Amino acid sequence: MANDFTSSPLFERVERARRRKRKLKETHITLAHGSGGRAMRELIEGVFLEYFRNPLLEQLEDQAVFEVGQTSGANSTRLAFTTDSYVVDPIFFPGGDIGYLAVNGTVNDLAMSGARPLYLSAGFIIEEGFPIDDLKRILESMRAATQEAGVEIVTGDTKIVQKGSADKIFINTSGIGIIESGSRISAARAEIGDQIIVSGAIGDHGTTVMIARGELELETEIQSDTAPLNSLVNEMLDEAARIATVDAIHCLRDPTRGGVATTLNEIALSSDVYVQIYEERIPVREEVKGACEILGLDPLYVANEGRLIAVVAADVAQAIVERMKSHKYGQDACIIGEVKAEPKGIVAMQTGFGGTRIVDLLMGEQLPRIC
Amino acid sequence: MANDFTSSPLFERVERARRRKRKLKETHITLAHGSGGRAMRELIEGVFLEYFRNPLLEQLEDQAVFEVGQTSGANSTRLAFTTDSYVVDPIFFPGGDIGYLAVNGTVNDLAMSGARPLYLSAGFIIEEGFPIDDLKRILESMRAATQEAGVEIVTGDTKIVQKGSADKIFINTSGIGIIESGSRISAARAEIGDQIIVSGAIGDHGTTVMIARGELELETEIQSDTAPLNSLVNEMLDEAARIATVDAIHCLRDPTRGGVATTLNEIALSSDVYVQIYEERIPVREEVKGACEILGLDPLYVANEGRLIAVVAADVAQAIVERMKSHKYGQDACIIGEVKAEPKGIVAMQTGFGGTRIVDLLMGEQLPRIC
Repeated sequence: MANDFTSSPLFERVERARRRKRKLKETHITLAHGSGGRAMRELIEGVFLEYFRNPLLEQLEDQAVFEVGQTSGANSTRLAFTTDSYVVDPIFFPGGDIGYLAVNGTVNDLAMSGARPLYLSAGFIIEEGFPIDDLKRILESMRAATQEAGVEIVTGDTKIVQKGSADKIFINTSGIGIIESGSRISAARAEIGDQIIVSGAIGDHGTTVMIARGELELETEIQSDTAPLNSLVNEMLDEAARIATVDAIHCLRDPTRGGVATTLNEIALSSDVYVQIYEERIPVREEVKGACEILGLDPLYVANEGRLIAVVAADVAQAIVERMKSHKYGQDACIIGEVKAEPKGIVAMQTGFGGTRIVDLLMGEQLPRIC
Repeated sequence: MANDFTSSPLFERVERARRRKRKLKETHITLAHGSGGRAMRELIEGVFLEYFRNPLLEQLEDQAVFEVGQTSGANSTRLAFTTDSYVVDPIFFPGGDIGYLAVNGTVNDLAMSGARPLYLSAGFIIEEGFPIDDLKRILESMRAATQEAGVEIVTGDTKIVQKGSADKIFINTSGIGIIESGSRISAARAEIGDQIIVSGAIGDHGTTVMIARGELELETEIQSDTAPLNSLVNEMLDEAARIATVDAIHCLRDPTRGGVATTLNEIALSSDVYVQIYEERIPVREEVKGACEILGLDPLYVANEGRLIAVVAADVAQAIVERMKSHKYGQDACIIGEVKAEPKGIVAMQTGFGGTRIVDLLMGEQLPRIC
């Protein structure tokens, strides 16, 4: 059946479109350029990469990995370095706030390279008139998040702009981590036969933030999943090393902007493989499903802030899932799909009804200011 | 004469005020909290440090310095890490733009620790509707600046916010550098007898940006001094090592927000020394002097983006100045003052008329969004 599907004319068309060089057609920035989807990829590949081309940036990972010290060899140190700005609206929401996001998001981007996060920077842009009590609440969240993740904020910057020149508060965090395990995790390392793991139910964060905007007067119990995932990754690396080698973990990504669909597309494109997932295996809370229907969203494209996608060798997959289940942030971990050869660069989902649909990069905007 | 001055009741009052624990009295953020002056220090010491207290952050340097790899000893690597957000208004101005500032500012914060800047991150917050041609112009500036400084942008992030939620474009850059020289530069290392060097004429950047806002319809030839100072610092370290030891360079700071006055106050406070400067020795362009008079600004408090203040051992000072003069960005380098013992934590300037006035931390706001 997969064969019928992959030889369809639709499939060929999608594949051809994929291989085209991405070029930006717009003359002005739109919200879609920040969506995590196709427009954002066009902005990054068609504009940013044109100016900043270098081997580290071109990998389009969520972090750069490089060696410092004694030039490569036994005495060199492998570091990961990453940055993210947080502009979430509203700044406080059930289960978290911009402070938690700012620490956990950067901790997670480091952890997804197999790094142990060490140090964070924090850059604040604050609108004149912002209540200092709100600032203190955010700083308290950041303090709590750094303590849980075992990192320290060691350098910072604060800029104040006039009322109306920014919306309340934006926070940038950058982070440095050290890769001690010898792992070589990359979105480009998915191999045929690999299993795809998700660490828990998807769509909680994005749905929570959309509801918290209050435009729909929806009342639910949904909370953001924002969490630091470095200790979960540690356990996964440890389990892989125990039963095989840390190298059995091929890709790790946190499906933030653009959600699981976008992350899987990035992996399919970077690794030049076909990713097949199964709708019935993907954990989505009933409340999230319901809220997404009302909001007109597809949970596959909704941002998560405390979940990860892992692509691992088939022979270690089940053991890693079991180990994840024993961790606070991996209780609902499960295998949702696998990596196949053809058609390359494509993600497709076998639906509950037995059909297969292409899970493409997001077109247009979905959720501005979700993180 | 200095003795008469320092035993005056005014002096004692200032000193007493200095020693008081800084506490924030305001309930809402004001522009003064971003000025680089007293209000900003109160925000940082009274709020941020309360939540993020740790030995690296408490040093209040412009960058954190730490070791990674083999725990301290011959095989460990000393790194510097820094962050800055750029919110300058207007984004384009004579002599530079927000892109140049964003790269040069972070390169300079690294260089001021004696580090060789290696890698930068770039986080963009862009307002919906921003012209992509303007973005390209900024990216071209960043590319040119990274090439001149010999650094690479290796990781990035882009967030788009709705029209009206940010003013055009804000850029955060964080940077990592490696300290290879064994220098131990710190604002806390000024010693009695040290000479104070400035690398060139002061006030150009801040004055240029104020004029570029067009509120005064002033026409001048003044340009921003934005420049990467890492190669100048290299030459200074090299000269110090040649005639004595790199350790002869005690403090290095780039006098950005709050200008030379603020930087000298930070050094006086951190090192617990008295800093005396001489008005007639401080290089200020005639045009900058004139524009500052019209704008009601004191050049001592105006931001620079391509200048440095160095506090160095007296026996190497003149040689370092000579070496600086042979460098493109140090042609007007000169000694503007010296470090004395008492009254501790104070900066004062001997004026052209022979009097002495205290150069205090800036009260209130001076120049919002100058960098």
